Amino acid sequence: MSDAFFKSRWVQPPDGVEQLDPSGLAPGFRAGAAHCGLKGGGKTDIGLLVCDAPAVSSSLLLTRNASAAAPIRVCRQRVDGAGVRAAVVNAGNANAETGEQGMADAWAMCERAGAETGLEPSLVAVAETGVIGVPLPIEAVLPGIGEAAASLSADGGGAFSEAIVTTDRWPKRCTVKAGGVTLSAQAKGAGMMQPDFATMLCFVQTDAVVEDPDAALRAAVASSFERVTVDGQMSTNDTVLLQATGEAGAPLPPGLLDAVLLQLAIEIVADGEGAVRVGRAQVDGAASAAEAERVARAIANSPLVKTALFGRDPNWGRIAQAAGQALAGEDLEEIGSDSIDAAELAEDLAEAEIGLRLDRGEHAAHVYFSDLGYEYIRINAEYTT
Amino acid sequence: MSDAFFKSRWVQPPDGVEQLDPSGLAPGFRAGAAHCGLKGGGKTDIGLLVCDAPAVSSSLLLTRNASAAAPIRVCRQRVDGAGVRAAVVNAGNANAETGEQGMADAWAMCERAGAETGLEPSLVAVAETGVIGVPLPIEAVLPGIGEAAASLSADGGGAFSEAIVTTDRWPKRCTVKAGGVTLSAQAKGAGMMQPDFATMLCFVQTDAVVEDPDAALRAAVASSFERVTVDGQMSTNDTVLLQATGEAGAPLPPGLLDAVLLQLAIEIVADGEGAVRVGRAQVDGAASAAEAERVARAIANSPLVKTALFGRDPNWGRIAQAAGQALAGEDLEEIGSDSIDAAELAEDLAEAEIGLRLDRGEHAAHVYFSDLGYEYIRINAEYTT
Repeated sequence: MSDAFFKSRWVQPPDGVEQLDPSGLAPGFRAGAAHCGLKGGGKTDIGLLVCDAPAVSSSLLLTRNASAAAPIRVCRQRVDGAGVRAAVVNAGNANAETGEQGMADAWAMCERAGAETGLEPSLVAVAETGVIGVPLPIEAVLPGIGEAAASLSADGGGAFSEAIVTTDRWPKRCTVKAGGVTLSAQAKGAGMMQPDFATMLCFVQTDAVVEDPDAALRAAVASSFERVTVDGQMSTNDTVLLQATGEAGAPLPPGLLDAVLLQLAIEIVADGEGAVRVGRAQVDGAASAAEAERVARAIANSPLVKTALFGRDPNWGRIAQAAGQALAGEDLEEIGSDSIDAAELAEDLAEAEIGLRLDRGEHAAHVYFSDLGYEYIRINAEYTT
Repeated sequence: MSDAFFKSRWVQPPDGVEQLDPSGLAPGFRAGAAHCGLKGGGKTDIGLLVCDAPAVSSSLLLTRNASAAAPIRVCRQRVDGAGVRAAVVNAGNANAETGEQGMADAWAMCERAGAETGLEPSLVAVAETGVIGVPLPIEAVLPGIGEAAASLSADGGGAFSEAIVTTDRWPKRCTVKAGGVTLSAQAKGAGMMQPDFATMLCFVQTDAVVEDPDAALRAAVASSFERVTVDGQMSTNDTVLLQATGEAGAPLPPGLLDAVLLQLAIEIVADGEGAVRVGRAQVDGAASAAEAERVARAIANSPLVKTALFGRDPNWGRIAQAAGQALAGEDLEEIGSDSIDAAELAEDLAEAEIGLRLDRGEHAAHVYFSDLGYEYIRINAEYTT
């Protein structure tokens, strides 16, 4: 079962899902990868994804960070988010805070990918991830796109998913089949992570009929990437892309997209920088949905709660403190020690549950979060500008 | 100059301030300390402070955390904040999330301190700090108050300030004289720290005439403890007490209380759990005061900025990211690399300046914050419930 994609106890895939080799993409899609020197060590750092089906409908969700990177701005301004045919990605340079040149470079990536695949550049989404504030070496990136195009293959999902990672310890990807349709997905995450509506990079391909890709993707993101936090930080480069060809003639089985994105989101938390354990903070009985959300996030983002999770310390006092801060000026009942299952924590599970029941109403919220340990410090104090 | 109390480059004390031995309290006050076993190792953990002057006016500021500890609730409900004569403090047990028994125990501390000093218990403030959710061993605390009362002395400021600390690496205290008045202060801090209006524990005594202690203390706290963050966490037990006898017949020199509290606040940041460096995030040109504050706090509380400060990495991209998150949905100009003085950071100064100029208006805000390093993890992952 260790090879099972749906590992988390919090994910419920629909019945009858068949797991395929994640290198094989959904029918109608090809992907490729190349190395252009952004990462060093010969690792692939350019990914290219293209849809060959007669028609495609898509949804492209982008970060709301006010310091959005050049590729985000290019996607907003020049790319047709409902008809994305291809995606070109680099990992190793975020192309953020890089001025007019950065905008020109991001658009040049769309143009080159379009030229290689016979597409208008406005049908090519561009995504980049990595260091901020360093000019993109476009003279190396463009030939890299050419190489990635030469490697395009229906079995390129594995190569693509490996090219788009940065500090990830393992690739996040799957190809699954259910109800007569196939869905493949590749994600990367790790740090600078608290989505608003998108997070990190995630690409999803399917041959299912998806009538309203925006609605489907927004709903799935709302219950997955919007529910996770590693360090409370919203990225400048978050991008999620869903592409559907409709060639299978059948819709997505209910819950499939949600289950895949939730498992990927939890993988991203589990692979949070330095993380060893995933927590799920569940708040019930809040006076409003906003209050439930605020309290759950206060717990999930508290460095005191996160270090306690790292140390396997059932320190429920820190949960009371964080919840009390989120409700400052009000008066909170004592929460008691049953908010954390100390026995469960002692077992050193990879997933730990924190529950907090307020006595103020009927609203609930939950957030998945990573612990905070020495590795987070090492990675982030030594990651150089 | 290493013995100078006003060490920070960001603190401007009024002219002519004379620094006295911090064990000597302002005239009219006595303090004492005792060990009752809360801390272990024979360290003092009970502090008692009393004013003997004919009259005293006071201001008592308390945390707004909705999970406020028993001593906070007792102070709110049963103590006369404008006429506090004495303060009884324990360190090692926060007496938070301890139910009705905790309330009774906190009040018993007021009663015992009152009995020892000949005061009504409603004139005794109680403050506690330490672990949350553990019943107070009141049978040890009450005799400890008796011992502390027996040790009361006009030179007890040093003993008092050492008794009230928890994970602090050094005591925070001063006694200064200016304009014919004396002011002494003792604070503790270290972790679980982001004030709303109060923070940690701080006690201030003066023989000056203070016409409106609430206004004076609130103003000084607004520009000191309200401007610092260690880990963004509002404590369940924050308490600040100002007591003034008026015996000197002169007012506080303008700026003296502010300078003392700011230096103490910066000391608390410098002694943040595991901290090696203090940052000051200055935001100018914001569209509103609230926006300036939001952006400054987003920078100061970003674990990515804090780990970069720890690693002496002039990673201005993380400042752009944090500011962009605080302004999500809007569009922020690029901030450029001059937001951090890389040369200054390379010098390994104890205090580093981060400046961010927005181009949106005339409002400014600043926040002092600690870096985030390995020691924070060690302290908080291993601090046991």
